[in-house]
Amino acid sequence: MKIVIAPDSFKESLTALEVAQAIQTGFARIFPQAEFELVPMADGGEGTVQSLVDATGGILQKIGVISPLAQPVQATFGLSGDGNTAFIEMAAASGLHLVPFEQRNPLKTTSFGTGELIKAALDRGVQKILLGIGGSATNDGGVGMLQALGARFCNAQGQEIGFGGEQLADIIHIDLSQLDPRLAQVEIEVACDVNNPLCGEQGASAIFGPQKGAMPEMVQQLDNALAHFADKVQQQLGLNIADHAGAGAAGGMGGGLLLLPKVRLKSGVQIVVQATKLAEKIQTADLVITGEGRMDAQSIAGKTPVGVAKVAKQFGKPVIAIVGSLRADYPVVYQHGIDAVFPIIREIKDLNETLQAGRENLISTAENVARLLKIHLR
Amino acid sequence: MKIVIAPDSFKESLTALEVAQAIQTGFARIFPQAEFELVPMADGGEGTVQSLVDATGGILQKIGVISPLAQPVQATFGLSGDGNTAFIEMAAASGLHLVPFEQRNPLKTTSFGTGELIKAALDRGVQKILLGIGGSATNDGGVGMLQALGARFCNAQGQEIGFGGEQLADIIHIDLSQLDPRLAQVEIEVACDVNNPLCGEQGASAIFGPQKGAMPEMVQQLDNALAHFADKVQQQLGLNIADHAGAGAAGGMGGGLLLLPKVRLKSGVQIVVQATKLAEKIQTADLVITGEGRMDAQSIAGKTPVGVAKVAKQFGKPVIAIVGSLRADYPVVYQHGIDAVFPIIREIKDLNETLQAGRENLISTAENVARLLKIHLR
Repeated sequence: MKIVIAPDSFKESLTALEVAQAIQTGFARIFPQAEFELVPMADGGEGTVQSLVDATGGILQKIGVISPLAQPVQATFGLSGDGNTAFIEMAAASGLHLVPFEQRNPLKTTSFGTGELIKAALDRGVQKILLGIGGSATNDGGVGMLQALGARFCNAQGQEIGFGGEQLADIIHIDLSQLDPRLAQVEIEVACDVNNPLCGEQGASAIFGPQKGAMPEMVQQLDNALAHFADKVQQQLGLNIADHAGAGAAGGMGGGLLLLPKVRLKSGVQIVVQATKLAEKIQTADLVITGEGRMDAQSIAGKTPVGVAKVAKQFGKPVIAIVGSLRADYPVVYQHGIDAVFPIIREIKDLNETLQAGRENLISTAENVARLLKIHLR
Repeated sequence: MKIVIAPDSFKESLTALEVAQAIQTGFARIFPQAEFELVPMADGGEGTVQSLVDATGGILQKIGVISPLAQPVQATFGLSGDGNTAFIEMAAASGLHLVPFEQRNPLKTTSFGTGELIKAALDRGVQKILLGIGGSATNDGGVGMLQALGARFCNAQGQEIGFGGEQLADIIHIDLSQLDPRLAQVEIEVACDVNNPLCGEQGASAIFGPQKGAMPEMVQQLDNALAHFADKVQQQLGLNIADHAGAGAAGGMGGGLLLLPKVRLKSGVQIVVQATKLAEKIQTADLVITGEGRMDAQSIAGKTPVGVAKVAKQFGKPVIAIVGSLRADYPVVYQHGIDAVFPIIREIKDLNETLQAGRENLISTAENVARLLKIHLR
């Protein structure tokens, strides 16, 4: 019997690999002869780099970049075991967590550090970059990121504009002639699970600006700046980024990335599914076990377990989810390929104690799931 | 497919019947064609009367008796659907919860009310009485209970002794001639899961006295009084109650009951198993589901799920437990016939919210257990 164990991480508690190992431990108590294949998964959000490094036997790299406030900061990215692929999370260089609450101001914050991470990956000679863009502090249309890679955005005086979303309003001329030439060879897959356009009521500034510190007037200013940026791109490069689905992701990063030659926006979990060769592994499995920290109705919107289940159902495999907690609205997951789901909480304790018991509770739940599977009914 | 659902109650939340119904609801979503047999169970402790009334289609009866402090109190007992058996919990008439904390004093408290309940059952014409003796406030060797049934315990002056454990020291003469004659015909099965003798270090006073309000000196006085009572029983009735296993249960109630002609002390869950004809029902089942409010290492000591599992394993049936919570020391239940166990908690909430979500969480857990059982592995 072959069992594929492909969970997401349990946030604040266990990495995806640790979750998978705990599930294996519990299962192996009952099915010691089973073949287990551990596939740490992610959905393009927090934990994706760690999972992909673990899934490919890769390594983490730490380099100095600049933060959203243009201060020096150490940021980590991943390289696959074969060295061919880099795994980058925008949040590592340009994340909201890097900006103290009272300094959150998307008029000023830049995505430059994320461009530095991409450049560092190119320096390592990779052929492909997988980029997660969740959790950013920026609303600069990815212009900072493009600047780090050699693009120039000049104002009426012919001077390069500064950092931050407000500066986009000054763009008169866009010059991509100095863009890092390796970008023409290296494919960048961007994990993007929102369809928001660049501007307007559903755009980057209106939807995501407030959580980054933008007040209503600021939202309008940022939205106008992004629209101006899109106009210039349209005029000078002939690219319509304003209406591209997902252009509004990560403060317009989704749109800015479209200026690079080999960029594709894709579902995050789909990127991870491909990077981990999940389908190939599931094809020969008898059972698939997945999981995530919290399962609820939102889990059907691009989260890992449903993404894994989608692959499993292409091959008609049963899928069991083991989860940290389970909200009352969860049953919709049954219509998306999850056959059964088990939360791991065993006792009423406080959050901290519950998180600490995570590994033990996972093992115990997995063991009981295995015990139940061993029961044969007529 | 036939499924027997035989859980205990979830204390402070759901009766055993309500637990069984919730489990059925969840299971029937996946196995709508299955035949379900609901058997509300108990272990002789709190909730036993309700479960047996539910299991037999019986009724509850409320009568006026006297409390441990000899004040009027309403107490409930049960009658089986066929009217042949009465179900009594000592705690209903003589329970610790009937005595305010500051008045707890086993020198004074009497088991008389429990005798009144037995008498009321005899008045209903039953052929058998099942008596649970947990949770008592008394340490009177069951003398109060015996007084209510016609026994006389006189002091040196030939006067009947009063109520409470301290009065036993004055007993000179025991007269059973006026004992209710129906007791010679009616069998009383006493649910007793402790082996404590009447007196000494492991006796009623030393082990159970303190939780009923006895200070160290009072424990000694009570122990001496029980020993004196046992001596008089030995001398005048030729009965050795002092060393009988379980005589120390419920403040010596276990010992006092041995003065009645047709009394047997048995395991509580075994009494319930017989009263509910559980073996007969399990014999034709494909699967047995049990449960209790909290499962831990103590669950192997006379608690319902392990009692149910013992019966199921005589017929080689699989047993799944669904529980309110599960303590880390639980795995020993696997050696006692429980094949798999699932706690129902889905999220970290406070105790009150968790208890309120009990029914919904039970249904959901049962559904997922059923979903998992439906998965067939090669």
